[in-house]
Formats: sequence, C-alpha cells, structure tokens
Amino acid sequence: MESFTFTERVERWGVFECTLTAQIQKNPFTDQKIQGTFTSRSEQKDVDGFYDGNGEFRVRFMPSFEETYTFEISLDSTEVTWEGEFSVSPAGKGNHGPVRVADTFHFAYEDGTPHRPIGTTCYVWELQSEELQKQTLKTLSEGYFNKIRFCIFPKHYDYNLNEPISYPYEGTPMDSSVLTSDNFNLYTGKTEGNSWDFTRFNPEHFRGIERSILALQELGIEADIIVMHPYDRWGFSSMSEEEDDLYWTYLLSRLSAFRNVWWSLANEYDLMETKSIADWERYANLITVHDPYSHLRSIHNCKNFYDFSRPWITHCSIQRTQMYVCSEEVDQYRTRYKKPVVLDEIGYEGTIQHGWGNLSGKELVRRFWEAACRGGYGGHGETYYREDRILWWSHGGVLHGESQERIRFLREIIEDIPTTGLKYLPGRSDEICAIPDIFTPGSVKVYDYYLIYYGYTRPSFKEYYFDDESTFSVEVIDTWDMRVENRGTFTGKFRIDLPGKEYMALRIRRV
Amino acid sequence: MESFTFTERVERWGVFECTLTAQIQKNPFTDQKIQGTFTSRSEQKDVDGFYDGNGEFRVRFMPSFEETYTFEISLDSTEVTWEGEFSVSPAGKGNHGPVRVADTFHFAYEDGTPHRPIGTTCYVWELQSEELQKQTLKTLSEGYFNKIRFCIFPKHYDYNLNEPISYPYEGTPMDSSVLTSDNFNLYTGKTEGNSWDFTRFNPEHFRGIERSILALQELGIEADIIVMHPYDRWGFSSMSEEEDDLYWTYLLSRLSAFRNVWWSLANEYDLMETKSIADWERYANLITVHDPYSHLRSIHNCKNFYDFSRPWITHCSIQRTQMYVCSEEVDQYRTRYKKPVVLDEIGYEGTIQHGWGNLSGKELVRRFWEAACRGGYGGHGETYYREDRILWWSHGGVLHGESQERIRFLREIIEDIPTTGLKYLPGRSDEICAIPDIFTPGSVKVYDYYLIYYGYTRPSFKEYYFDDESTFSVEVIDTWDMRVENRGTFTGKFRIDLPGKEYMALRIRRV
Repeated sequence: MESFTFTERVERWGVFECTLTAQIQKNPFTDQKIQGTFTSRSEQKDVDGFYDGNGEFRVRFMPSFEETYTFEISLDSTEVTWEGEFSVSPAGKGNHGPVRVADTFHFAYEDGTPHRPIGTTCYVWELQSEELQKQTLKTLSEGYFNKIRFCIFPKHYDYNLNEPISYPYEGTPMDSSVLTSDNFNLYTGKTEGNSWDFTRFNPEHFRGIERSILALQELGIEADIIVMHPYDRWGFSSMSEEEDDLYWTYLLSRLSAFRNVWWSLANEYDLMETKSIADWERYANLITVHDPYSHLRSIHNCKNFYDFSRPWITHCSIQRTQMYVCSEEVDQYRTRYKKPVVLDEIGYEGTIQHGWGNLSGKELVRRFWEAACRGGYGGHGETYYREDRILWWSHGGVLHGESQERIRFLREIIEDIPTTGLKYLPGRSDEICAIPDIFTPGSVKVYDYYLIYYGYTRPSFKEYYFDDESTFSVEVIDTWDMRVENRGTFTGKFRIDLPGKEYMALRIRRV
Repeated sequence: MESFTFTERVERWGVFECTLTAQIQKNPFTDQKIQGTFTSRSEQKDVDGFYDGNGEFRVRFMPSFEETYTFEISLDSTEVTWEGEFSVSPAGKGNHGPVRVADTFHFAYEDGTPHRPIGTTCYVWELQSEELQKQTLKTLSEGYFNKIRFCIFPKHYDYNLNEPISYPYEGTPMDSSVLTSDNFNLYTGKTEGNSWDFTRFNPEHFRGIERSILALQELGIEADIIVMHPYDRWGFSSMSEEEDDLYWTYLLSRLSAFRNVWWSLANEYDLMETKSIADWERYANLITVHDPYSHLRSIHNCKNFYDFSRPWITHCSIQRTQMYVCSEEVDQYRTRYKKPVVLDEIGYEGTIQHGWGNLSGKELVRRFWEAACRGGYGGHGETYYREDRILWWSHGGVLHGESQERIRFLREIIEDIPTTGLKYLPGRSDEICAIPDIFTPGSVKVYDYYLIYYGYTRPSFKEYYFDDESTFSVEVIDTWDMRVENRGTFTGKFRIDLPGKEYMALRIRRV
C-alpha cells in the first residue's frame, strides 16, 4: 500500500486525476484493469482508470460535493493499492456542474442554474489543424452557442476527405490520395488498405479531444460527444462487438469525469448497417455502468427516430425526418416522449448541393424560434459552399452566415424567461404562443409571461385579451433585426400595431 | 303554337337566349315553370327557363355542336308551345368551350385545349360599385389568372361590412349602420331586422352577375361560382330547405348556359351550421339534374375536406387545413382522390391580422410552384391591410402585392408543358421534380421533360444524370426574378452551377 495526500486544489465538479506508473508485460489497454473508489460523507463512487501510454495509468474523478474525499486505487496485476485524500473547494466562476434534465422537458446544471441548450455542430473540428481549432474556439467565444456536437472518430464524407490530425488507434490509414468529391462514396465503409490494431489506442488522439473538451468548458459550452458514426473509410464504424466494447469502456474511463460531457451514442445511428438495436442497447448499458456521473444520453437519427422512450435516454436528440416540418412538431414530440426535445439537426444555413445544408439564415432562425416557443431547443449548423472546403459544420473555423447573431439574440431572450423552460399554449390561432412550463391548476387561464411568435406571417396588428384585471407590459421583438421595442402597459382588451413584416414576436409580461 | 326562326349568329358554346312575355297571376318565380328542349343531330337537351321580371321569361341554351338546332319551349300555365330553329357557327376566337376534367388529374376545354387553372379569389367583387368592378376587370385583363372565385350572395365579415350594390331577393336589409370591425361577429348569422321574400328574386342582382360572368369570359377567365357561404347577416345562409332548393334551381336555370361557369357549392361548407351533409348532397343532386352541361363541381372546406371521392365532385377544391403544409401534399391528395387538385386557398399575400391573410409574396409563389411541380394547381388571394378597407380578396380593385407577376410567369411556364399536366416524380431527394403526366410503361426511366423546383433551399450547384444517350437542353429559371437562362445542352452526367439563392428551378428538355 502506498499513500498520497493531495494539496492541489480540486474544485467541486472539477477533475481529480491520479497517475500511476507501472510496467506491464502484456497489452496495457486490454490486460490491465485499474479502478478507484472515492468516498466522501455524501457519496461513494467506483470509477475506471485507463492506460495513457508511456507506462502511465490514470484515474479521473469528478467530486460532486465540497467535502473531503478519500480514495483507493488498485491495479489488478499488482498486489499494491494506492490510497489518498483530498479536499474539494467550492465550484469556481462559471462552474455549475454537469447538466441534468429539469422539470421533465428542460435542463439545469447540477447547482440548479437553468441550462437552455443552443447548440451547433462541428463534427470533427477538434481533428483539424491547431490553427483551425484556435479559430473555431475564437468563433465559439462569441457566445452564440452553449453546446457543440462533435465526433471522436474522424469523418469521411463529401467535403471531408482530408486526414485527421490523429487517429484513435495505433496503425496506418489507407491511401486517400486518390479520393475526390466525385468518388468518395465508393470508399465509404471500405476498409482495405487500413492497418489498425483495435486493441491499442493512440492516447494522444484522446488527449487532444480532452483538451478540446476543457477549452469548451472554459467557454461555458457543453461537449455533446458523438461516439459512433457511419461516415467512415477507416473501419472504425464496423469493428467487432468486442472491439466496440473496448472502445466504449476506454472512452468512458477517459471522459466521464469532465462535467460538460454529454453522450450521443451516434450520429445517424440508422445508417450504420452493421449495428443492430441490440448493439445500441448494449452500448447504452456500458454507459450506465461505466459513467458513474450519469451524463446526459441520447442518440441521433437519420430516417427514423430511435425509440426515445427507452429509459436510458435522457432527452430526444432529433434530426428532422420530413422535408418541411420538424420544429413545428416539438410540442407533439414532448407529448409523445415526456422528455426534453433537442432538435440537433433541423437543416443548416448554407448553399451546398444537399437539401439539408442550404437553408437561408432566416429559415434556420425561424426554426429556432418555432422550437423555442413550442418548448424545445433548436440546433445550428453552417454549410456554405466554399472553394477552400472549410465548412463550419465539419471543420469549424469562422462563420459566414447570418443566423448565428440572431440565435445569440434568441439565447438572450430565452435566458430571461422566468422559469426553467417554456411550453406551447395550444388553441391560439395564427400564432405560436409560449408560456412558462410550470404546473398550473386548470383554473388558471392567465399567465405571467407570454412569448408569442409570428414566423413567416406578417400581421399589421394583433388584438389581445387575457382578463379584465391584470396589467401587462408589452414588448415587440424583431427577431431578425434583433430589436426589442417597449410598447408600454395594457389592461383588458388591447391592440398592438405591428410592422407587417415577417419574423416578429411579442413578449408580454404581467406587471 | 308559335314559331320562330333565329337569324342572329349563335356560336358554338355561346348562349342562345329566347324571351317570352306572359302575364302570370300568381308568383311567376314559383308558380310558373318554363322549359325548353333543344335538338340537333348530335344532342338533345332539356333545359329550365326562368322568370326575369317585367313579365319576361327566358330560356338559355349552350349549343355544343356546329349544327342546326330545333327547339320547343313550353310555359306550363299555357297550352301554347313555341318552336323554332337556329344555326350554330364555329366557336369564335378564344372560345374553347367549357372546361372538363382531362387525363384524370388535369383540365382541358371541350375543344381539347388544355386548361391549367391559375385562380384568384375576389369574393364579392361583382357586388361592389361599378367603378370598382371596372378596376377589377382592368386588373384581371393583365393575364395573371384564368379563374376567379366569387359569391352570389353578399358577404358579411371583417373588412366586409358595406352593403352590396344589389340583393338577391325582394325586401330590405337590417340596419348595418351600427356595425364595426369590433362588433361584426355579433351580427354574423343574426337575421333580425331583415325583411326578405325568399320566394321572389331580384332579377337585377342576377343580371349583374351574368354581366360579370360574360366580362370574365371576354378575358378568358373561368367564373368559379360560390353558391353558398357562411359570412352572412341577411339570413341567406339559413334559409329553409324549400327556399334553398328554389334558389339553387333559379341559379342553375340562369347560369348553366355560360360556358365559363364552375360550381362551387360553398365556401367553407363546414362553417354553415344549419346545413348537413344530406343538404350538400341534395344541392349536388340539383346541379346534376338542372345543369344539362355538367359544368365542373366541387366544394370548399374550412377545417375538414369534404369527401372528394363523392362521384358528383369533379375536382378537389382545397383550403389548407394545416398551418404549415398543403401544396407540399398535393401528390398525396391526388393519390387519395384520383381527381384534379386545385388549392383554392393556401393562404393569401397580405398583412392583415389573420394568419391566412398575411403571407409574403415569396411564400405564396413558393406554394404555387410546389403545387405545380406536384401535379396540382395553386390559388391566389391578396389581403394587404389598407385604411380604405378595399382588399382584393373580397372587393377586387387593384393589386398591391408582389406575387401576381410571378404567378403569371409560372402560368407561362406551365402553359408551355408538352402534355395536359404534370405529375410529381418521387424519390429525387432535395428537389421537387415534375414530369409529364402521361402513362409511361414501368421500363421508362427517362422522360422528355423535367421541371425541377428547389423552393427555399439554395444549392450552389446540382448534379444530374438521366442516361448515357440522351441530350438535354437545360434552362435555369429564377422564379422570383422571372428570368429563364439557357445553359446549353448536356449528355450523361452533368453539373449545373446555381446562384445559391432561394426559389430557383430548372427546366430540362430532351433535345
């Protein structure tokens, strides 16, 4: 037995990391198990460690309480256990803990602060050059988004033919010099020419991802990790059951201690032909066993939603399955699944040839507002056609579009609501009306807050009546020009003149 | 017996009219029946006449053949019959006969010329001042539309509080001086204060409508007559069964002989609370009995479609029943009903407070293109909020919007297709692709004509492949800027660069 006392500061929901060095004869990734048990007054958790190369094994732990922790770590090839103790200081500025489901349809950080996800997608931004990664982080620092979806494995697809900065496994990739945008799909799922040892990870690949997760954490951005995906020329999407499980447990042991991690089992799970529902359920089970912190879990579809009613799924992660409507059905999805509805893919702003990637900024922002006023959460992506083939949607970099500023404006509106989230008030014709999503007895007919959106309709005026007694302050919101105009207070029946333009909203609050 | 020979020129599908004078003791509208039988080599038709005031009874007949006709007319209170003969000359310029269903999903005039309806709605344009009617006809002469929907009865509704220039019955209306836009719905369906004799028509009301129908005929515009509607403060929507039937037979006897008449049993039939499905079926039966020319017949809904599969219905006359989609479902409606799909109400361009009347011109034109490329036909209406309360949708006058020019442009494109109509080609992702609507054996995979619409998506380029042999001419159509750009001819796989703008289309024709 060896004993440590840690004097370094570990904050609540920070990462405590302990490194042990041991020389292992066999494959340290597969033949060596390292585990830790962490105990404080309020919790006890068993966590997996992992091999990080160079003879170093690490155990990471995220303490959830400001308490003194003791721990015990064992390496199963040795008789030795390591013991120690450390104290947890209060959470630092901007650290609210991991995000949890709150009030059935919404989210809050563990300290109770509401989290209203306003996400974007940059599938492999963290596998691009250092310079491009820096540019991405600079763009993200503008505060447009508080969640980003990205993949662990590199991506092979149209506009995604380059090699990543690192690979997850030891080995060498196929020769990609012959790939072009015209022939890339001949190589999709083709594994010849790759030479990987799926039992030996490349720790540097994962360390890079961890640096990215921490950089996002600094910016207050949740890392919605896409663990598997079908856009592949390296064979990572068609490994054996045993190889998949090794990958999952390795990843879980490395990333679970980061508070801003969410698990997305896959992007477009239903395009992964070699995986069955039984496989997805098995991976889900691995998460529930090996992530001791119960980070948020979902799975993203192409043609058909996964069964979001499965108990391990914390929230719906939706790609639209119809050409015309998706945001417009958020209230129906809520009713069906009784979980938060996050529209991770509702079409992207851009001009590429694919219909999912050539919306106007106006249409994307309209979808965000529709989703918000129906009690859900939109998702951004950008795919402008560019000669340099650097598209935000995959590579990050800079944004060329018009939607992000308006999405940030919406984010400000949404962060100012009086409750955790909003819900759709049915029955009001010709408008999308949101009210606070809290339980109100059936007798309540008038609410303290209304956010009413008119989308592509263009009324010149609207008339309102809630009751005879209450006084309401009324603001007219131009969701595209990003202006909030105070119109004063009103009681009883009142009329508000509007500019006969698209994309207007009203915020009506009881005084 | 009296005998006539008519030397006046009657053209094919024109109106032959015969007037008899008789003094009747009782009510000439109800107690006197006048009927005619018209015979030529190719047809024999029994037609109803009607009382037109001042002791005059009239019989109208539309000959469908260039032949010599004999006729016999009888007034059932007298023993006398009138006989005569006339010759029918060829149809004049622009006269193609009444419109019929053609090729299941489309229309053609009786002479075989295709008719592709591009309709508008001006509910009571013909009951406005002479001056406003003239302005409406002037606007219609611009060739934007070839069909217009309007009502026989005056309309009571928001923005429709004025009195019509005439009433259909003898009597006096309620005092409407107290009506305002705020209280009008208190008067809807309220009949107190009206004093009408529902057994005595006001012939001048109907003569005015007939003048309007003929003026439209001059412009090549079909008159889609709305026989009943719910927007009423005069009691015309809640007459007894007997009164309704008298109205229907009178109207049928007056208007059936005009070749450009279509019958719309009602606007928003399902808002007429005093009428049951049995009533609508009874009216339908009256049409089939009393319109000897089988003009087109349909019925327009509010919340729920009428059962368009009823055999007397010639085509679907649709108002959208969902907030977001309608044009987008035209191909589904075709499959369901196996009849032409006319979207008579898909939202109007304008800025009034109602969601059905405040679309942008761009959105309305998008819906027209969507409908066209799915094998159906859109409908226009305009409801800009105006201080003078003269809105095209009800009153006619001038157009203030942006859609009509683009609708005329679409009309030109559609009138240039190689077949009667178009149909949707399923399975092409991210585009609405129309092909000629003719039977093609399953083995045919390449067509002579494609009209491809991109709607609100904005591709920078698209790639096409039909086969290795055919050569196609390609035109890029800017449906909003109304430009057709010839891009030359292509064989095999080819790529077309596009401007990354909304509302683009391609016309691809085999050379």
